[in-house]
Amino acid sequence: MNDDVWFDDLAVGHRCAAGPLAVAREEALAFARSFDPQPYHLDDAAAERSVFKGLAISGWHTAAIAMRLLVEARPFGPHPILGLGVDELRWIAPVRPGDALRLEGEILALAPSRSKPQGTVRMRLTLFNQRNEPVYTLVPIMIVPRRGG
Amino acid sequence: MNDDVWFDDLAVGHRCAAGPLAVAREEALAFARSFDPQPYHLDDAAAERSVFKGLAISGWHTAAIAMRLLVEARPFGPHPILGLGVDELRWIAPVRPGDALRLEGEILALAPSRSKPQGTVRMRLTLFNQRNEPVYTLVPIMIVPRRGG
Repeated sequence: MNDDVWFDDLAVGHRCAAGPLAVAREEALAFARSFDPQPYHLDDAAAERSVFKGLAISGWHTAAIAMRLLVEARPFGPHPILGLGVDELRWIAPVRPGDALRLEGEILALAPSRSKPQGTVRMRLTLFNQRNEPVYTLVPIMIVPRRGG
Repeated sequence: MNDDVWFDDLAVGHRCAAGPLAVAREEALAFARSFDPQPYHLDDAAAERSVFKGLAISGWHTAAIAMRLLVEARPFGPHPILGLGVDELRWIAPVRPGDALRLEGEILALAPSRSKPQGTVRMRLTLFNQRNEPVYTLVPIMIVPRRGG
């Protein structure tokens, strides 16, 4: 990724990618204990009997991993990822401990601010597992500065 | 919360609450190092110069804390929180290390499944800080089983 990227240089359809990143079982259990202490994230036997048919990592752990990969993808070059919010977040399929996730992103829409030297970027992000199955998708809404702002 | 709650017992306007939960500085830094390694989550001086005007915890850490509080609130009694996705997620104001967050939730919409013994629940969740300022809001979409299903 170029190191001189500003809002002005972005275009609908621009793509980015990062990963794969493997999800360690102990990290998945630690995340679930801290933030999502439910049987199907913590207990193999209970998870086997659940709708997930086996241990699944917390959906919010998946979300955090997607953020990590977006930071690595650097879609805005040197500018940080500054999120206002997210639309259309969906958990499509369970993520298992040991899965390796990769990120694909594409710019959906760009809107320059009328009052500030910046613009709003909407992207479609998708995580795929090691079988290239989509497991998670979302549309983050982010702020990127304009050149000379 | 009653321990015999099913989809059939829920109604639009039902409310739940949990917290407050304090965000420790070391936990905020550890989360950011793992999932959101950006200067305004990790470096006090860089954060001071940023739009956040001081260290802010990762928005995905805030999201994970909201999940933890929702699990504690037990809006569906003994049934787990099973999320399909989220709409209208917004980070409204920065969360600082040391802030204490509490959750309020309200059921917005209920839709029974036509094919399965379950229904879809949409809630509005909001996190407030210790000054009762809203800092985060989202509309999770969740599945709850029907009685006798």
